[in-house]
Amino acid sequence: MNASVNRQILLVEKPVGKLGHEHFRMSDAAIPEPKDGEALVRVHYISLDAANRAWMHGATYRAAVEANSVMAGGGIGEVVASKADGLKAGDIVFGDTGWQDYAAIPAKHLTRMPKLEPMTHLLSVFGIAGLTAYFGLLDVAKPKPGETVAVSAAAGSVGSIVGQIARIKGCRVVGIAGGKDKCDWLTSELGFDAAVDYKDGAVFKALRAAAPKGIDVYFDNVGGDILEACLPLMNNRGRISCCGAISQYDGAPQATGPRGVPGLIVVKRLIMQGFIVMDFMDQRDKALSDLQSWVSSGKLKVQEDIINGLENTPKALIGLLAGENRGKRMIKL
Amino acid sequence: MNASVNRQILLVEKPVGKLGHEHFRMSDAAIPEPKDGEALVRVHYISLDAANRAWMHGATYRAAVEANSVMAGGGIGEVVASKADGLKAGDIVFGDTGWQDYAAIPAKHLTRMPKLEPMTHLLSVFGIAGLTAYFGLLDVAKPKPGETVAVSAAAGSVGSIVGQIARIKGCRVVGIAGGKDKCDWLTSELGFDAAVDYKDGAVFKALRAAAPKGIDVYFDNVGGDILEACLPLMNNRGRISCCGAISQYDGAPQATGPRGVPGLIVVKRLIMQGFIVMDFMDQRDKALSDLQSWVSSGKLKVQEDIINGLENTPKALIGLLAGENRGKRMIKL
Repeated sequence: MNASVNRQILLVEKPVGKLGHEHFRMSDAAIPEPKDGEALVRVHYISLDAANRAWMHGATYRAAVEANSVMAGGGIGEVVASKADGLKAGDIVFGDTGWQDYAAIPAKHLTRMPKLEPMTHLLSVFGIAGLTAYFGLLDVAKPKPGETVAVSAAAGSVGSIVGQIARIKGCRVVGIAGGKDKCDWLTSELGFDAAVDYKDGAVFKALRAAAPKGIDVYFDNVGGDILEACLPLMNNRGRISCCGAISQYDGAPQATGPRGVPGLIVVKRLIMQGFIVMDFMDQRDKALSDLQSWVSSGKLKVQEDIINGLENTPKALIGLLAGENRGKRMIKL
Repeated sequence: MNASVNRQILLVEKPVGKLGHEHFRMSDAAIPEPKDGEALVRVHYISLDAANRAWMHGATYRAAVEANSVMAGGGIGEVVASKADGLKAGDIVFGDTGWQDYAAIPAKHLTRMPKLEPMTHLLSVFGIAGLTAYFGLLDVAKPKPGETVAVSAAAGSVGSIVGQIARIKGCRVVGIAGGKDKCDWLTSELGFDAAVDYKDGAVFKALRAAAPKGIDVYFDNVGGDILEACLPLMNNRGRISCCGAISQYDGAPQATGPRGVPGLIVVKRLIMQGFIVMDFMDQRDKALSDLQSWVSSGKLKVQEDIINGLENTPKALIGLLAGENRGKRMIKL
């Protein structure tokens, strides 16, 4: 990192089909001056999330990302200059820094974070990923001990935590992930009761075998065919926590939705509920306290996938959309 | 009705495509003798419901109907002989009488009904249709005054009551129905704020115009394209009460589900919840008391569509599936 230059990665064009390297470009800019109410943040880690790709489709819970601007993304950094009350140089903050070395951001859009080691935990288990898993499982799906919980993208940043929390809560846990290595890791390292390799075909049959008493809670990170496969296996009064639809992000908008909606929703009295982690921020302290105690007691294992270098951010996101990562992927600047 | 013969309508074959007259056959049987614990019921009115067709696809919240047996269906009748405690000749009961003049039914599968005039109200507003509308709207979707409620199959037995209850609760109500006559009836007679004719094409545009502040509650009777059209118009934290999927019943199983599931469920934090009216039967008295007071005060208009003659039951169901009826369709024996 050159101390006088702000390296940035721009989204030069919104992808129509699959996201590729050609949609990004590196560029050098001046390090910005913070305005009144802003802090200048030196970015240490950039979070990579499937949602980054979804933002390119249009406005969601945030504005769409636009072509020819710095690619948006969450990041953890250190305040190096501040013109905002309540933030001073040396503070560690989380915010939408974008894919760049430095960002001047209004203090109201930054969250001051505790100083803990490793700092990466602020993006993984104690960050959006961990809180998403916590609230989406416990507050949205409300699993009961003895119930069967299935989770897709189970080796990913959110899914790997969902499954472990479900185990902590006394549930039988079935993970759905791509590839034998990930599946073995889920059962041998993370304590999942069973894992289904969706790349192995016949997801429905494998799921049925892995969940002989049916599925009470399905934590859906992917939508599409996997959601469709889970629906007939849901038990009456089951809950589907709709967290994301990764299968639909990297390409043109989906042509169809999953069969069984709404027929099986009716017959099985299912609840499908979407959520955004920000809606639960008033309960953040309780969640972090639980997550911290589980991590320190060893009940919750933290898996991170850290890639070095701002210049590798596009490649890291493209790889994440292809299912390369295990646990929370991030870029170290 | 010949006093010594039990006329029955059999389902001779389960339809693969559309339901037709060829799938039914009339037959004469002896009037059954009630066994211990059973009552013999002389059927007065048979309820026609889109769900009758759904039962032919397989087990749902009830066993599938089977070929070469009396077609299943709810009915209101009078006990003419009883070998069951708690039921005596002259009692009015509701149960799955099937499509026939007489049925011997275990008392535990019959519900004793109040004697009120017209008796047909026991199948419409004070029957399954009214209770489905009541619980599905108020307990599942929980509309708040000032919210916009959309309902499909709005001129049907359930939809016409849903819309009126939503009006009573201070909501803006948009009905979706087939044809200008039904739509005019919804707005001019039932007090709906707007109606959208789905046969007129461009449902999404018409809905958007009819719900300028978006949809907070969608009471879904139909699934399919109409559900798909409503999803993008839902406001954040909207609720979709999944009551039925009429659009999917009369033909082969659906090839695809609605687009927007689960993507829009996530982004808009929607809740889709399926329900079966039987789940709410512990609150039946409260519901009936509300419905009765609304009917007697004129706030809730009861629309019935009564067809004479057991022999016309197949035709009446086939017509109902094609959207012929307005309000609760039933057969008078």
